[in-house]
Amino acid sequence: MTVRKLNQEERDTWTSALDGWDMADGRDAIEKTFEFGDFVEAWGFMSRVAILAEKADHHPEWFNVYNRVEITLTTHDADPDNGGALSKRDVELANAIDALG
Amino acid sequence: MTVRKLNQEERDTWTSALDGWDMADGRDAIEKTFEFGDFVEAWGFMSRVAILAEKADHHPEWFNVYNRVEITLTTHDADPDNGGALSKRDVELANAIDALG
Repeated sequence: MTVRKLNQEERDTWTSALDGWDMADGRDAIEKTFEFGDFVEAWGFMSRVAILAEKADHHPEWFNVYNRVEITLTTHDADPDNGGALSKRDVELANAIDALG
Repeated sequence: MTVRKLNQEERDTWTSALDGWDMADGRDAIEKTFEFGDFVEAWGFMSRVAILAEKADHHPEWFNVYNRVEITLTTHDADPDNGGALSKRDVELANAIDALG
């Protein structure tokens, strides 16, 4: 299934409504860093995100060290030649991650 | 507990005996990339590594996207001012990860 990249209006309204997600440097992607008390807490969060991602069939690029988790979201299929582009799927996954609480 | 960085002899013998781990660019760290059939397989591997790491109280820097997992190991306490240095802990964790099979 081809996924359409966000148009300018969607981009302005949807991404700016996200809590703490910023545009990634030099990419059409959003990113957010999460910090926890320790590795076990960070891992618990990642496990919940992993299940959300697999259910949505939309997977993050993410980095973890100890209590820190950096998540980057973009949609490869929306612009495969340029490492992806933002689509509705990214906004939905970002909101689902933030709703984990 | 302070962790001693590897001396030259340990470095030559231990790190060269590792399977597929290379020195990270510009850091005293080792890294290896693992590829799996899909995200669920990659996540299963990461879950096993997470438990090994927590038991050893020695945590990786790692990146995942879909079926790929990039692991970097260094010991922060062995050289905190330079982002870590290789210690025996890294060699032990690398071997434990490879032994997951």
